[in-house]
Amino acid sequence: MSRQELPIVPDAPACCAPLVDEALTDGEATGLARGFKALGDPVRLRLLSLIASRAGGEVCVCELTDAFTLTGPTISHHLRVLREAGLIDCQRRGTWVYYWIIPARLAALSQLLDVSTATVAPGTTR
Amino acid sequence: MSRQELPIVPDAPACCAPLVDEALTDGEATGLARGFKALGDPVRLRLLSLIASRAGGEVCVCELTDAFTLTGPTISHHLRVLREAGLIDCQRRGTWVYYWIIPARLAALSQLLDVSTATVAPGTTR
Repeated sequence: MSRQELPIVPDAPACCAPLVDEALTDGEATGLARGFKALGDPVRLRLLSLIASRAGGEVCVCELTDAFTLTGPTISHHLRVLREAGLIDCQRRGTWVYYWIIPARLAALSQLLDVSTATVAPGTTR
Repeated sequence: MSRQELPIVPDAPACCAPLVDEALTDGEATGLARGFKALGDPVRLRLLSLIASRAGGEVCVCELTDAFTLTGPTISHHLRVLREAGLIDCQRRGTWVYYWIIPARLAALSQLLDVSTATVAPGTTR
């Protein structure tokens, strides 16, 4: 990743009640789908889990690169997708960039899929 | 959708602890990413919310088609992607197919993104 100014993370939509409570509007679905699309890749999901599970809350990009057999530019691309979807943020300190998750955005996606109050269709099981 | 036998929903992975608890393995990430990828489209997310929010737990495909300006085959395609990702299931009764969510699969994805125990990076806020 270059030393140039990093792009600003888009505002996460102020969203939403669980899917089981009410249907989404077009606008809500568009913002939320962007987050899920970013999560829809195994490498990005592993990167996010490596960042999210780190004690202390942040990870140097140098450690993330070491965890994969992929090239640095490929890792940087996937980190950029996660960042542009508002799931992570980062800060450069000296040589390295440090990443952390944005809990509010992940919580919004988690709450949307919360089915604890779901009605179960007749003849099916949870 | 034709009257032929519908494909079997793949087994949802028996997964996972929240991302903030431990990093995902390759195999876990692949199965989970498939679910998120299916959610990464506004039309599919709206379809899922229409099914999930229905009192009684299931929806006739005829009502789903009426809620969009898209063609029937396009709606059927998106429903098939959701079904192949293990997020919904369906049953034909007479002329129509009825859809319902698979709560266990949605709960697994929701739990993965649960950040209620996350460590917050220094200098950031939730």
